[in-house]
Order: sequence, then structure tokens, then C-alpha cells
Amino acid sequence: MSDLLTGPVEVVGAGLLGTSIGLACRRAGVQTFLHDLSAEHLRTASGLGAGRPRRPDDRPQLVVVAVPPDHLGSEIVAALRRTDAVVTDVGSIKSEPLQTVGEQLPDLLARYVGGHPMAGSERSGPLAASAALFDGRPWAITPHDEATPHAVSLVEELVRVCGAVPVTLDPGEHDRAVARISHLPHLLAVLVAGRLADAPDSHLALSGQGVRDVTRVAGGDPALWEQIVRHNAEALRGLLAEVREELDALQNALSDGDRDVLGALLARGVAGTEAIPGKHGGPAHAMRSVFVSVPDHPGELARLFADAGVAGVNIEDVHIDHDPGRPVGLVELLVEEARAEHLLASLESQGWITHR
Amino acid sequence: MSDLLTGPVEVVGAGLLGTSIGLACRRAGVQTFLHDLSAEHLRTASGLGAGRPRRPDDRPQLVVVAVPPDHLGSEIVAALRRTDAVVTDVGSIKSEPLQTVGEQLPDLLARYVGGHPMAGSERSGPLAASAALFDGRPWAITPHDEATPHAVSLVEELVRVCGAVPVTLDPGEHDRAVARISHLPHLLAVLVAGRLADAPDSHLALSGQGVRDVTRVAGGDPALWEQIVRHNAEALRGLLAEVREELDALQNALSDGDRDVLGALLARGVAGTEAIPGKHGGPAHAMRSVFVSVPDHPGELARLFADAGVAGVNIEDVHIDHDPGRPVGLVELLVEEARAEHLLASLESQGWITHR
Repeated sequence: MSDLLTGPVEVVGAGLLGTSIGLACRRAGVQTFLHDLSAEHLRTASGLGAGRPRRPDDRPQLVVVAVPPDHLGSEIVAALRRTDAVVTDVGSIKSEPLQTVGEQLPDLLARYVGGHPMAGSERSGPLAASAALFDGRPWAITPHDEATPHAVSLVEELVRVCGAVPVTLDPGEHDRAVARISHLPHLLAVLVAGRLADAPDSHLALSGQGVRDVTRVAGGDPALWEQIVRHNAEALRGLLAEVREELDALQNALSDGDRDVLGALLARGVAGTEAIPGKHGGPAHAMRSVFVSVPDHPGELARLFADAGVAGVNIEDVHIDHDPGRPVGLVELLVEEARAEHLLASLESQGWITHR
Repeated sequence: MSDLLTGPVEVVGAGLLGTSIGLACRRAGVQTFLHDLSAEHLRTASGLGAGRPRRPDDRPQLVVVAVPPDHLGSEIVAALRRTDAVVTDVGSIKSEPLQTVGEQLPDLLARYVGGHPMAGSERSGPLAASAALFDGRPWAITPHDEATPHAVSLVEELVRVCGAVPVTLDPGEHDRAVARISHLPHLLAVLVAGRLADAPDSHLALSGQGVRDVTRVAGGDPALWEQIVRHNAEALRGLLAEVREELDALQNALSDGDRDVLGALLARGVAGTEAIPGKHGGPAHAMRSVFVSVPDHPGELARLFADAGVAGVNIEDVHIDHDPGRPVGLVELLVEEARAEHLLASLESQGWITHR
């Protein structure tokens, strides 16, 4: 339950995001009304427990607009006119709808605060919805200067009720951010997947986890993504130019056998993967190294890991110091600081020589 | 145990693949010897239970060469000279090592059959190894005309012992296949990841599952991938040119606001994801539709899915037929044919009206 988001919440658009928000609100005991142009989506979302169809005399506390980019601005404007609620949205782009509201309804701008949950990718429609879709995920909140503190707080509370992590940034910065960490990845995944559509079966038969992971997002609704990409073309322009330049360099490096250029490009890729924050974006737990002597016999390392498994402590990293002159190696196990003593005691009880 | 692969198996190269093969052989009770230039890798792999270090008087039945592309050809040649075993390899490219052997040791070519397991991507080294790495994965076998039937059978048996699915193709076709379904995806993932390395924290804070999936493989060992890509440059040339062309078209479509070009590109991406075979590459099970009447009340659909869950039958797909004039909808559930009757009986016992 929420003291601030007392409800009701009206959700406009009963697709994947809208229905999931309805389910999350219902999970928190908040009354929810739904609307969708498609009677089928509306009945399905309602049937799933996301809320009841809205009625003309409803008075929501908050309206969540969850429609595709082409209709975002107009639906936010309509909601501001139709109700006296705070209005937010969950669209993939934030500058444009804000501009639309600013042009059409400057007097009611104060009640609008845009947002964008970073959840759900290639699936769509109410049947793919889940109350847990947003749990632990980032949810961008993009307030403008004229938004009331109450409107901002209410949207932050919606994010909290949905189990997500609020990330505040201004609308333009948001659009540049999602171009880089969502829209560009989608487009390049599409370029990879495009090479599979007419591929020989013998090629496809060798598909492993790698190509599946790279192309998963490319399965997303093309009608929706066509809108998203088109509406964020400006932010994508520079990134696509960078990619094009690097692709040129890669093609030349392969033709010329230039190992340095190729190696540098691959190293930049590794650096990029390391830049992505940990799952919940919070600080890592304090870690500590514990040291164990391991005799140099076949299978001894495996025995150590099995015995560490008995202790139930997650081993984050392992380093092995083999002194060529010694028959015993020193193994360094990196574990959460709070679990280190427990691991040491468990290993010692199982006969291992440990060092603190 | 295997009647054909009686062992011993010698593994040259105690990295991720070599160590995993050693572990899989030991899992099957096959004696395994290991070798690696790095004493540390050798001790670690042995300590993990992948086998004992090889000795000069060992006589293996099969040698598996698991070294990076730069040394593949020479190590296969050395193994053919050093032993009278069948020799296979697990390198990422197949035409070049075959050519090397054909040039240097044509008389012993009959004992060599190349292979390539499609398993393990961004992780490397013996500590990342697992006996189960290859379970259910495709493993390419690329025999040449002069290979003896015994050599081919022995390599097929190794694949079976490692739990993998053999896929036979000729070496050139293999190289073109992996360019398309492994090397190109890796390179484009690297291009996406390259945009993250120096990205603002505010951008990275919005990272979701999509960018993580697209860039995961880009975390792979750059020294290894530099070799793989360089050795398969010829097969990659045409694919990179196609991607470059499509990228140009995409940039132009965004500048011009050309929705058709953009839509077609995205649709081709969806088609590509659908071309990737099911996890084990086998034929899909026969499916059957069962129909259930669902009253049009909030939450009824959720109740149906929960009750279907009780039956323990996996629902592969759902279609809902809402007749606007009726208060009851007909829901079509797609399930495995063999489970359909059980689901129907279970739902009926829980009060649902079903139709066969």
C-alpha cells in the first residue's frame, strides 16, 4: 500500500507496459481503470486482473499514458484536458511529448511529468504483461521546470509501487541516453538478424547462445520500433555515424590485416561491457580475499570448489598462485566480506589449510 | 562409457574448451592427458579433474587440439607427427588448418578430422570450464575426402561423449556459416559496446536487459577474437559489406523519414530471429489447440492461467476470440498434443467449460 499513491490510477493503453502497470498497482492494492482503442486488449488486460474498464465519471488521481510514440503527445494532452489528475507517460522518447504539451496546453503543463521504465523488450501485448515486469529495473523520470513538486513525487511513488528504481534526468539527456543504450543496440541487433532470414539451413544449424543473445531484441514489434526509431532519429544520428566510421575501419583493418586496429576495436568492446552497471545499479558489496593451500594433485581444485559450495558462499573470483618449485598452490577466493569468516571456518572444518 | 572412444584422449591446450573436453571425458570414464604451454593452466586444469599432465610415453587413441587460431595448423601437424592417434581440433575456423595439414603432411591427412563445438563465448581459461559446456550444443564436424571412416566415427563419438549434437558440413561451408552466426554477431556486439566505454553515467544508468544481451559476447577475450576474425576475414568480407549497405540505407531512411525502408528493415530482423532453430535443433513437438470459455469479468483470464498452471502443462501460445456481442470469450491454448487431454481434464475438474 502507498500513503501517497492512494489511487485510482487510470492507464491509457493496455499493451505490455500499461497492463503490467495495472497489475503492479493492483498488487499494491491501488484501484486501477483501463482504456484501450482495442476492445480485445481491454478485455484481455481486465481479464488478467490489471483493472476494470474506465467509465466517464471516474476521477483518477494519476493517469499513466502507455501508447506508442505516434500518439503519445496527443494522449497526454487529452488526459490533461479530460481529468484534473497528475499525468505521466511511459513512452520511449521524452522531449517530443513534452514539446507537444508545452505548445498545446502550456497552462496545464505543471500536472505532467514524463517517465520511461526500462523494462520489457521483444514481447508485446497484454498477454505478455506481468506485475513483476519492473522489479529492480531503472525507470527514468524526466521532470521539467514547471512541474509541481506534488506531480513529481506522485510519479516517483508510482515507480516505487511498481518495484522499479527511479533515475532522474532531463528529457533531452534521456533521449540521448536511450539512443545509446537501447535504440542503437536494437538497430544493430536487427542488422545481425537480417543476415539470418534467408540463411542456408546448414549455417543456422550451428547457431549457439551468442547469436541468440545478440538478436533477441530484434524480435520486437516492428511497428512499434519503427515509431520509436523515427521519433528519436536526431539522437541516433551521431551514434549511427560513429558506428559507420568504426565499421569502415574494421573492414579496412581486415583487408589490410591490421592487427592493431582490430585489437583496439575489440578491446574497446570489452571496456564497454565493463561499463554497464551491476544489475541494480547500486554499489557493490565489500569483498575480501581468503587464501587456501591446495596440493598439486589432479582434482584437488575441484574438491575445494565443491567444499566451498557446501559452505553456501558465492565465490566471485578466483586467482591461483602456482610457485613452480612448490607442490602446493595458493588459491585466492574473492567473496563478500560478510561471508568470509563463515567460508574459512567451513573449509577448515573440512580439512583445508587456510590463511587470513 | 563408450565402446568406440576407449581412450586415452590427449588434449592440447588447457583453456576453456580443452579443459571442458577433459572434464567431459573424465565424466564418461575416459582417461585424459593434458598439455599446455602455460604451466599454470595445466596445473589448474588438472586440479579441476580434467586429466593428468601428458608424458612422453603416452599413447593416446585421440588427440584434441584446442589452441587459438594462430597455432592451430602447426599443432595439428605436430600431433599427427608425434602420435599415431586420430587427431581432431576445436578451432573456430576449418579451411585453413586443413590446408596447412594438406600442404605439410599430406600422407597423414587421413588421420585428421576437424571439428568445432558451438559452446562457450565470452568466458575463457580453465577456471571457466565445465563438463556440461557442450550439452545439447551443436558441434560441427568437417571431414575431408581423405579422412578414414574410423577417424570420422571417432570424432563423432567424442561429440556424443561430450553431450553435443554433431552437425556435418564441409570446411568452407563451416567458415561461411560461423562468419554469419558467430563472428558477425560478435563484431556488431563490439560496435554497440564500443559506444558504452566512455558513455556518461546518466546514460549507463538506464541500461536494461536488452543492451546487456546484445553486448554480452563482446566481453570475450580480445586476443582470441582478434585471431578468429583475422583468420576468417574472407568469409566475413561479404557479410560486412551487406551490413554496411543496410546501415547506409538505415541512416538515409532516418534522415528522409522513410517509414517503408525502416519498417522493412525491422521486419527482416524479426524474420531473422524466427529463422534460428529451436534449442536442440530438432523438430518441434506436434501441437494442438484446446478451447476454453472464459467469462468477461476482471481477473478471469488470470484464473484460467493459474488453473492451467496447476495442470502442469506448458502453454506455448494463446489466442483470444472476443465476440463484442457476447459476455463470454473463447480462449485458444496451444499445447503439446500429448498433453492436451490431461489439460482439458484438469481444467474441466476445476469448473471450466472446454471445447475439443
